[in-house]
Parts: sequence; C-alpha cells; structure tokens
Amino acid sequence: MNKSKFPLDENILKNIIENHEVDLNKIGIRELKRLVDDLADQLNIDFLHFEFGVPGIPADRMGPEEEIRVLTEDKKLPSTYPPFDGIPRLKKATACFVKAFLNIDVEPENCIPTVGAMHGGFIAQAIAGRRFKKTNTILYLDPGFPVNKLQTKFLGLKNDSIDLYNHRGIQLAKKLEKKLSTGKIGAVLWSSPNNPTWLCLKDEELKMIGKLLTKYDVIGIEDSAYFGMDFRFDYGVPNQPPFQPTVANYTDNYIIIISSSKMFSYAGQRIAVSVVSPKLSKKKYSNLKKYYDTKSFGHAFVHGGIYPTTAGVPQSPQHALSALFEATCKGEYDYLSRVRTYGDRANKAKEIFLSNGFELLYDKDMDEPIADGFYFTIKRKVMTGGELLHSMLLFGMSGIPMRPTGTKREGVRICVSLVPQEQYGELEKRLKELDQFLKIR
Amino acid sequence: MNKSKFPLDENILKNIIENHEVDLNKIGIRELKRLVDDLADQLNIDFLHFEFGVPGIPADRMGPEEEIRVLTEDKKLPSTYPPFDGIPRLKKATACFVKAFLNIDVEPENCIPTVGAMHGGFIAQAIAGRRFKKTNTILYLDPGFPVNKLQTKFLGLKNDSIDLYNHRGIQLAKKLEKKLSTGKIGAVLWSSPNNPTWLCLKDEELKMIGKLLTKYDVIGIEDSAYFGMDFRFDYGVPNQPPFQPTVANYTDNYIIIISSSKMFSYAGQRIAVSVVSPKLSKKKYSNLKKYYDTKSFGHAFVHGGIYPTTAGVPQSPQHALSALFEATCKGEYDYLSRVRTYGDRANKAKEIFLSNGFELLYDKDMDEPIADGFYFTIKRKVMTGGELLHSMLLFGMSGIPMRPTGTKREGVRICVSLVPQEQYGELEKRLKELDQFLKIR
Repeated sequence: MNKSKFPLDENILKNIIENHEVDLNKIGIRELKRLVDDLADQLNIDFLHFEFGVPGIPADRMGPEEEIRVLTEDKKLPSTYPPFDGIPRLKKATACFVKAFLNIDVEPENCIPTVGAMHGGFIAQAIAGRRFKKTNTILYLDPGFPVNKLQTKFLGLKNDSIDLYNHRGIQLAKKLEKKLSTGKIGAVLWSSPNNPTWLCLKDEELKMIGKLLTKYDVIGIEDSAYFGMDFRFDYGVPNQPPFQPTVANYTDNYIIIISSSKMFSYAGQRIAVSVVSPKLSKKKYSNLKKYYDTKSFGHAFVHGGIYPTTAGVPQSPQHALSALFEATCKGEYDYLSRVRTYGDRANKAKEIFLSNGFELLYDKDMDEPIADGFYFTIKRKVMTGGELLHSMLLFGMSGIPMRPTGTKREGVRICVSLVPQEQYGELEKRLKELDQFLKIR
Repeated sequence: MNKSKFPLDENILKNIIENHEVDLNKIGIRELKRLVDDLADQLNIDFLHFEFGVPGIPADRMGPEEEIRVLTEDKKLPSTYPPFDGIPRLKKATACFVKAFLNIDVEPENCIPTVGAMHGGFIAQAIAGRRFKKTNTILYLDPGFPVNKLQTKFLGLKNDSIDLYNHRGIQLAKKLEKKLSTGKIGAVLWSSPNNPTWLCLKDEELKMIGKLLTKYDVIGIEDSAYFGMDFRFDYGVPNQPPFQPTVANYTDNYIIIISSSKMFSYAGQRIAVSVVSPKLSKKKYSNLKKYYDTKSFGHAFVHGGIYPTTAGVPQSPQHALSALFEATCKGEYDYLSRVRTYGDRANKAKEIFLSNGFELLYDKDMDEPIADGFYFTIKRKVMTGGELLHSMLLFGMSGIPMRPTGTKREGVRICVSLVPQEQYGELEKRLKELDQFLKIR
C-alpha cells in the first residue's frame, strides 16, 4: 500500500490521539510531531508539514567555514573559557549591525552573546522581572511563542497578556497603560514580525509603547527572531533607510534579542545576541542584589545571568555569527534575499487556502493586509483550532493550534518554511478535497 | 624598569585595592584578575597565576577535528535545531563512558548534554530543589565552587552548608541526617575531587550519603568536574576496576554532572552531560508542574529545563565530546595521562610552599594525606585569607581567598594549572623571600 486516499481513516487517527493522550486544541509542537510521525508511518503518507517553525533553507557556508577556520587556526580556542560577556569580535560586529540595520547607537559592551535567543529571553525576563519586589509579572503582546511563557513559569513569575487582534494603535497604548500602571509588570515581551500571526508593530505603536515603558520603568523585551523579515519594506541595505522599527528609538528601557536561527538559518549552533540599552545597563535596582549579587542591570545580565546558567557561549559559533554580521554590514552578504523565499511561499500558500474555503485568522496589520512571511494563521467558520487541525490531519497536513499561543481566537498556525513551492500542487489538491469534505459534513 | 624587587611597593598595591573597591578576604576571581592585571601592568611584573581554575594544557586535536569534520560534511547541521535532549550519538557515548568508568548502568535517554557543566548544575538545582513546596534549600558539602551558590540565589532557593573539614565519615553522615531530616533540603551538591581543597569522598561516605538521600527523598548532585583525577588510584582503564566512587552505587536519587572542561581541556566550547538516574527520571513530583508544565523529573529536566534556557546545545561541540568519550571508552585515548601533570605539579608546589613556612589548610583526606591534583589550599599561622593573599601579591603571586568557598577556615586556594614546573625555580625564590618578609614583620 504505497498511497492512501484522503480522508485518512478516522478511527486510526482517533486511536492514535487516544494513545498519545493529547488534546488537539492544546497540543504542543513536540507532541504533535510524535503524533504526525505515528500517523504518517501507520498509513504510509507523506505529510505536508506546516507545524514546525524551523529554518527551511540551508545556512550559507560562511558560518561553518568560519567555525572551521577558527577551530583549525586557533589551537588555544577549545581549552580557553569564553569571556562571560562574549568574544570582543562578536560584540563589536553586533554593535555595527545594530547601527547599520536599526540605526541605533550602542557600544560593544552592550551586546551580549547568548546560547540562542532562548537564552537571551530567559535572562532578560529573569533580570527585568525581578527589579522590584512587587513587579512579578511579564506582559505578553499575544499571540506569541508559547515557550517564552514557560520561561516565565520557570522563573516563578506570572504572565499577563494583551491580544493584538483587539488592540492596535491607540487601543494598544490604552490597554498597555492600564496594565503598566498597576506596578506589577516588570517587562513587556513581543516579537515583530510576530510568531504566529506575522503581525508587525508600527513605528507609531512602538513610540507609544516606548513612552509608557519609560513612564512606568518597565523593560521592553523586543524579540527579533525574524529580523528584517517584514518583506513589505526593504530593510536589507546597511546604513540606509528604511530601518526596521524598534522600540529602542523611543525608550532607554529595552533589550533587543537578535537570533541567528531564522535570518541566517543557524539554529543548529545556538547563537544569538542580546542588546541591552546602554543607559539601562548602568541602572541600579536594589532588588536585583538578592538574586544576582549585584544591583547593576548590565552586571546582573552577564555575571548574574550568563555566568550561572552556561558560563559563557561556545566560542566557534560566536565567530560564525561575527562573520555573518560583518559581511552583512559591509553589504557583501544579503541575507534577506535568501529568506525572502518564505514571503513568496506564504503569498502563494495563502491564495490556495483562501480559494478553498479558509480565511485568515489574523488578516489585517492595522489597516493593511497582513504581510507575507514565515507564518500565517487560518480559520474556518466556527471550528476550533483542534477541530481544524483534526480535519487537516485527515488530509495529510499539519499545523499548530492557536490556543497555546495566548489568544482566545480559534485557528491554526501555518509555517511555510518546510513546504517548498514544488509541493503546492499537492497542497492545492489536498485542500480542495478537504474543502469538499468539510462542506458536505 | 624591566624588573622590580620584591616586595612590591605596598602603597601602590593599597591604591589599587582602594580604586577597585575590593575586600581581599572576599574577592572573586574576576575582580582579582582585574586587580592583578593592574598591578602587573603598573609595576611591569610577571605574576605567578595560581588564581584561575582553568585548563592549563591544550585540548587534544581530536575534539576540534571532529567539529571540523561534521561542519564540513553535514551541510544540514547549522540549520537544524539540535534535539532538546541531545544528539543520539553523545547520549549513547555518555552511557558507554559511564559504564566503562563508573560501572553504572544507564540508558542513552538518561544522558542529557548541557552547555557546560554550569548549565547542568543550574537545571539540576532548579528541578531537584522544587520538587516539594517546602524543600527550598540546596545543601553544599563545603568548601565548594562559589558559582553554584550563585545559581541557588538565581533560582530563589536558599543554601545551607556542611564543612567537610569537621565532618568526614560517620560525622558527615550524622550531620547530614540532621539537615535532611528537616525536610527543607531538596538536593545535596558536592564535587569530588573537590574544588578548592581536592578532598575526595570515600566510597563508604558515598554509601552513607546515598542511603540518606533515599531515606529522605533528597537528590544528590555529584559534580564530576575533575572526573577520575584522584591520581592516587588509576581510574583510567575502561571497564576495569578501580572505578571512581560515585553515589550512584548507593541511591537512585542522583544526577552526575560530567564536564569536558578540565578532563578534556574543552572549556571553550561549553559542553558537558548530566546523567539523571533512570529511576529518578521516571518519578513524578506534583510541585514540578507549577514551574515546568510536567510532573515527571526527566521530562522536567529536558522540556522544562533545557528547552526554556537554551533550546538545546550547539551541535558540533556535542560531536567533539562524543568523539572524546568514544575514544576513551575504547582505550584509544588516555585522557588521564595528560591531566596527571596537574598532580605532579601540585606535589612539587606543595613541597615548596611547605618548606617555606606555609601549611596546608585542608591537609588530610580522612586518615590519609590529601591527594595531589588541580588545587590545594594553604594557610599561614593566624593570617586571614585576605592577609595571606595581600602578602602573596607583594611577591608577585596570586591565589583565591577561601571565604567565598563557604568555609570559615582562613587560607588561600592554589591552582597549579597555569604554572608549569619550569617556573618553580622562580616560585621557590619568591616564596623564600616572602617567608623572610613575614618572619621579620
């Protein structure tokens, strides 16, 4: 049996779901992977995997070649502890990158390498969230990446949420001020472009956010996992506008987390940087002393954060990211032209979903249509995310239900990174059949 | 002025200490480094650096060559997220290593790579310390590595301490039972051989500890930073006794943390493994759910610990450590013969200190003389650690005062890793002068 007809056998799916003890409305990515693998194996079906938010294009060879070079030439590298605050080269390259692509001035000392952006987000929350005795909450602009909330739990902090669907522009500012004025919020965390909706915060929104962060001494944690990837604008020319909007233009209370995973497809070597505002770095908060043996924000980040968690970042990946930043800053390497393929895929995939009875769940970016990028979100009538996922699974497709991302709106996240356009004929075929199936149900 | 006579100018040292705002009795390694650099620069003196606990011999090329190989051959490696629980190869190699050198049976799934041993210790404390509502304390067998206590603080846990100087053998067991019976201790953390004293726990002590850990459901975190480096025994032959003693022989409540930093001089790429007891991995503690979204100890370690802190460990260093473990297990690579030089240095350095009016602070390992290894500890009459350090600095030598390591006993830690025996003539000369200086004071 080399090929099976859709829909797949519902009883088999039912049994697998029961065996795995999962709820499709809440299922996480790892559990879903196991379930889909099981289903694909049992029925010998090739799935269209829209569930993983992982790089779908190979890394440029510049990164590994730089690692190979330093591992070959620098005989002392393996036996030498990395500086806790990062190798000088990457610190310098990051400051140049931030100037060239955000037009923000920071010193190398403000740029701190971490073991992937996850590490930066973890430490950022740990320090920002514990500056005052009563600030015990991280506020999320949702929907968002569920693991950030797992970090909040790990740290024993609480999380709160504002759903961007109902709150954009001045509404966002109003809601935000209401939350910040309670004095309980230590940090506001968002990504832009956003996982899972690909919403992008506007410059005027970041301005309002920045002012409120300053007013209430709250820290903005700007997760730039998809740096420059709002493809409606060309953010790819160094030292020339347009620059990707950032809250750093409007407050000194910021940490920007720049990940190499998606922009450089460098997820495998876990390397990222956190840019801590120069003024924030120097600020002192007496409550930090209890956790990090220092009152200083910047010192707490490095000696109270990096040191006790990993005692620094592996050295050769730091050189890889240095090389990538350096080449990008010089205009010798246009990383955006490589990742733009995600936007092209999203554009075409959306057309196919929309012409087969699906709608976009998060469809607008304020007054404009949502941009095309790594992710988009779909819905169908009154179906829950779990119901929608269930029906997709029956037709050999998978995505992530929206509930765990912090929204009450029902739907599924589609990530285009692992489905190249050669497979879009198959996608169209399956969606057509699914559409018919759902119509006659 | 290319050479300055000892003692150095006391006023210059005094000024530098004042400028740096440090207390020599409590000074940490980073602050001491800055102070010594400053002093060395101002007076143009080459110091004998006994302060750093860093590898002093280069890494075998096997490690970097393996990283180079995978970065060259595996074109997908950079763009592929590592499995959160580690690459299968390293998990398997660790299980083999643990069998070959500890004679302990674990499965690959129980072996979890971390970003250096620091990362393993951090997660181990986080999970072990939060299993019950009232277990809020990590108990240290001191003196110990100060940064472990910084991890405890980061996690919002308390620390308690038993000083091994006064408590060995049955005294240790009695004191331990008194502490564990309070129900407040979540984990007991020790290293053996121990930083800073090079004490090594005896098998019968580990047996008593193991029984008490089981009796009170407390986790033993065995920090094997100096794996096999009690050179009084030859622990270096795979699958043959003697095996390094481990608490894993006597309880199922253990986590063994194996670092590559000292045994393989691989500190620069931050790679280690935690071995979580198979039975402990499967145990469920309902209080864990609050922090890690799961009750299961093993699942909490990986999905609640590794995932939200670094989302896995960089891939190429995992291959390096795999290769080193594999070669060691096959008997093709005798890492101990390389690091044994530390023992030789310690033996000779102790002689020189002892023949110049110094004594060993921790001199006995129960009834035997303390072993020779990476560190030893010295004292001199009633001088505090800070006073002793001060006088050493005047003669171009530096070490770490003992107070921050958790003991009330006064002295200085000497690490021999960065001072090769070619410099021992100079050491003898300076110590002789220092001895005279202190005698006539």
